[in-house]
Amino acid sequence: MGEAGKKKVIIDTDPGIDDAMAIFVALNSPEIDVIGLTTIYGNVYTTLATRNALHLLEVAGRCDIPVAEGSQVSLMKATKLRIADFVHGTDGLGNQNFPPPNGRPIDQSAASFLVEQVNLHPGEITVVALGPLTNVALAIEQDPAFPKKVGQIVILGGAFWVNGNVNPATEANIFGDPEAADAVFTSGADILAIGINTTHQVVLTDADLEKLQKSNSKFCQYLCKILGVYFSYHREAYSIKGVYLHDPTTVVAAINPSLLTYTEGVVRVQTCGITRGLTLFDNTKKRYGEMTEWTGKPKIKVAVTVDAPAVVQLVMDRLINS
Amino acid sequence: MGEAGKKKVIIDTDPGIDDAMAIFVALNSPEIDVIGLTTIYGNVYTTLATRNALHLLEVAGRCDIPVAEGSQVSLMKATKLRIADFVHGTDGLGNQNFPPPNGRPIDQSAASFLVEQVNLHPGEITVVALGPLTNVALAIEQDPAFPKKVGQIVILGGAFWVNGNVNPATEANIFGDPEAADAVFTSGADILAIGINTTHQVVLTDADLEKLQKSNSKFCQYLCKILGVYFSYHREAYSIKGVYLHDPTTVVAAINPSLLTYTEGVVRVQTCGITRGLTLFDNTKKRYGEMTEWTGKPKIKVAVTVDAPAVVQLVMDRLINS
Repeated sequence: MGEAGKKKVIIDTDPGIDDAMAIFVALNSPEIDVIGLTTIYGNVYTTLATRNALHLLEVAGRCDIPVAEGSQVSLMKATKLRIADFVHGTDGLGNQNFPPPNGRPIDQSAASFLVEQVNLHPGEITVVALGPLTNVALAIEQDPAFPKKVGQIVILGGAFWVNGNVNPATEANIFGDPEAADAVFTSGADILAIGINTTHQVVLTDADLEKLQKSNSKFCQYLCKILGVYFSYHREAYSIKGVYLHDPTTVVAAINPSLLTYTEGVVRVQTCGITRGLTLFDNTKKRYGEMTEWTGKPKIKVAVTVDAPAVVQLVMDRLINS
Repeated sequence: MGEAGKKKVIIDTDPGIDDAMAIFVALNSPEIDVIGLTTIYGNVYTTLATRNALHLLEVAGRCDIPVAEGSQVSLMKATKLRIADFVHGTDGLGNQNFPPPNGRPIDQSAASFLVEQVNLHPGEITVVALGPLTNVALAIEQDPAFPKKVGQIVILGGAFWVNGNVNPATEANIFGDPEAADAVFTSGADILAIGINTTHQVVLTDADLEKLQKSNSKFCQYLCKILGVYFSYHREAYSIKGVYLHDPTTVVAAINPSLLTYTEGVVRVQTCGITRGLTLFDNTKKRYGEMTEWTGKPKIKVAVTVDAPAVVQLVMDRLINS
């Protein structure tokens, strides 16, 4: 797997309408080579995420790409999960009642697949994590050297310096598995976290949608069928005529990192109480008298700005020219 | 008590070097009438706070003002407290070994005194809270109508949109009693919270100190003796040649509110885990699908900007012309 000169990417995903868009953009981007999808709960339960991942690869005509099913429960084995069906439809894909896929996931867990691939290609794999971080945390549990063997983990998650989207304290992906997120953020891997403070800048507008609707491309035709539910949710929840491109922005960060800027620091995740899932970035210049829970932990990169028009344009180009 | 036309103020305090400065500014400000001090742990333990409060009133020649001793433990009865002796000296007043005061606290707890005064003067009392909020929370427990009877509570506390000063998550006064702070912030009282995001703008510089040193005023002479420890701490912890005027800024907010601007919203305090003491302000415009821990709670005012030069000037004027 992996064409010469291309960045090898594994997408950990919970499709999800913007996951579908992100996967299509990834598949049609010559800069990267998608060598596998791993699935996770979030927008839907994991079994449905697996079904949708297989379905999307069939729509794209890319059944050569393996799908490894991920954890059905959180790192702490919680089975009561927050599923965002009110954002993506009960099927995760805009309530379109698509037929079941023909393919099947590989006979390997998401965590095992991740570990296998970083051992096969040390330093060369980019994991693009679009859901709760359970699979990545399990991969680290399975192989403590995973953080040093993975090239980079680009994470959609967190609400840095802003309120969350689940409640004022927390963003949905981190809230989905705070313990996993804290383990991943402090693992020592090269991590770029892209929070809603960044992705809320990247809006696909009604006018952009019209352009997609006019395209005859396979990806545009498919996405225009499923995007209605996602637009409705944004009108209702945010009073905007458009949708946030959370997952596509994260894929674009793997394709063209120069479209974002970032800062570096230690991030810890709160795991209890009313701010469970809060991502707290240490940016202080103070010398604390005491050791803190941030002291000595590895730093990660946190996205600060994004060239939103360029990201939207890149996403549109990759969908229209497919 | 209380001269006509003046704002009646009770200062809840843990003196503390900047508490001493704040109390002197308050005593020499014609806009307000300090009708009592209540004491709390924080910079020192409560018994020492009481001793220092009495001492400072004696220095000021204002033994007519009653001192009511506050709680020695947090709202949850914790006895293990974080005492900032490394900021203020072991005596709280710059390690000057001042003689014990002649006066005694009144035979009434801080909470009872607060309740009594707001019942005597409903709507007229401003509580300026310079330490952990235990006494105010206990007053609310004692009289559930306290929040509606108090005029305003001006609170030095919180780290809004910035890192804390105890650790990256929390500011010292809120960390001192997070449960009390959450109870007070959600009590429905008219509250203005002044966090370190605001007070870190207000710096008394070495040059300002020189001006105070040249003054023969009683307050300046006294303060210049005790300020050395506080300047040393700031050089070490923050690499600045100056000191933050946390407590004096909070008193100034009671004297001349027009020197600050604020925003309004619900603030909750995290009470467990690594971000215990975090103050989380809900500023989101999103309509959350679910009820959150912020939903329906009373709003408070949170200081956003401060006219720092004007605050420093006012503080200096009130100290020099004393």
